[in-house]
Amino acid sequence: MIKLVLIRHGQSIWNLENKFTGWTDVELSDNGLNEARLAAKVLNKHGFEFDVAYTSCLKRAIRTLWIILHEMDLMWIPVYKSWRLNERHYGALQGLNKEETAKKYGEEQVHKWRRYVDIRPPELTKDDPRYPGYEYKYHNLKENELPLTENLADTEKRVLEEWHEKIVPDLLAEKKVIIAAHGNTLRALVKYLDELSNDGVANLNIPTGMPLVYELDDQLKPIRHYYLNLEGEIPSGIIPEYIL
Amino acid sequence: MIKLVLIRHGQSIWNLENKFTGWTDVELSDNGLNEARLAAKVLNKHGFEFDVAYTSCLKRAIRTLWIILHEMDLMWIPVYKSWRLNERHYGALQGLNKEETAKKYGEEQVHKWRRYVDIRPPELTKDDPRYPGYEYKYHNLKENELPLTENLADTEKRVLEEWHEKIVPDLLAEKKVIIAAHGNTLRALVKYLDELSNDGVANLNIPTGMPLVYELDDQLKPIRHYYLNLEGEIPSGIIPEYIL
Repeated sequence: MIKLVLIRHGQSIWNLENKFTGWTDVELSDNGLNEARLAAKVLNKHGFEFDVAYTSCLKRAIRTLWIILHEMDLMWIPVYKSWRLNERHYGALQGLNKEETAKKYGEEQVHKWRRYVDIRPPELTKDDPRYPGYEYKYHNLKENELPLTENLADTEKRVLEEWHEKIVPDLLAEKKVIIAAHGNTLRALVKYLDELSNDGVANLNIPTGMPLVYELDDQLKPIRHYYLNLEGEIPSGIIPEYIL
Repeated sequence: MIKLVLIRHGQSIWNLENKFTGWTDVELSDNGLNEARLAAKVLNKHGFEFDVAYTSCLKRAIRTLWIILHEMDLMWIPVYKSWRLNERHYGALQGLNKEETAKKYGEEQVHKWRRYVDIRPPELTKDDPRYPGYEYKYHNLKENELPLTENLADTEKRVLEEWHEKIVPDLLAEKKVIIAAHGNTLRALVKYLDELSNDGVANLNIPTGMPLVYELDDQLKPIRHYYLNLEGEIPSGIIPEYIL
């Protein structure tokens, strides 16, 4: 039986400031740093080990992973960072306050941008300083890989490329894998693994800093999954609702 | 012109306790953490950037690198960790106090173990708990790769495997490379790059936490090299003597 651990990064300073973040590279808040430490404590307590880690190119996910690897004495394992695990690109909403955006466009429109699998927020223009094409970090990406905005289906497409090309071979080689990523990249992966409908994933929230364990069969089909805290497994029904 | 940056990890807690360390996986001291932060400040001040980083499987080198990547806002670059960049294995001396060892075996013998390219410290036996074969970290190594002890020539051999197989292709692809490693792995690399004799390398000390910049031609032959501090380049003659 193959175990895969997913972890959403701890609270970032923009979660705290209630801003749309997307590809903006913001740091964890103090609370987020503590969430990462607690996640490590939970994984240690339940005897987890890892052979390899995957994360995004965004420091809130990398920092979460580094704290976990530090606390688990696993700093030496290979870490693969990919833009394909970056948070969903939030287009022209990035940097805007969520409450102000709701006032301006209406709650319903914002809910659609955030939750509908096939709705994209307004696009960035390529002369916008927020366009990822200006960042050296993304200089190896082709132009059609540089998002102007994304819906969850767009995010899912690139997450699954990383999954099939890189992560699946490691899992099939019986490597113990941890993926430290973002709310929407993990929702996209869970949608795929659990074959969720568009409506199903619309209601799915993944809490920050709480290890989500998937037990997979040798075809990588989920047998079961559960969150972990210090006490043990948590039935997913009692996870507190979390506004992404 | 290709620039390569070498950095020896900051002071570790066993440097502080004056113990032979080798493959023992000890943390940086507070002083070592500060050395890493200063190295980052120096690299930032002189406008360095990196595309890729190499380090060992030992946390004092990885920690030094992580601090540098954090301070330089380069957490997202690929980091390759290899046992082939681990410190020289110090055999049965690992964990012993250097002063006590000198009293027991004589200053001259200890000097030979530490400085002669072709002299190995006493071997570990395979039932010694310090044998690296017991560490999960090294479970993918072949038995003949697991050292019982090493001289500098042994260390050089594995460092140059990493150099030729992994680092050279990156340099030739014009990637900007930083190598965060150890006193003896860097001495071995410098011996190779500068074609030092055994006597030449015996007198070579590389200070902790001070960026060592190599400018290389397109055949990767050194044009010149220099250490960097906040003021600028330092002629190597005035580097303070450092007891490894």
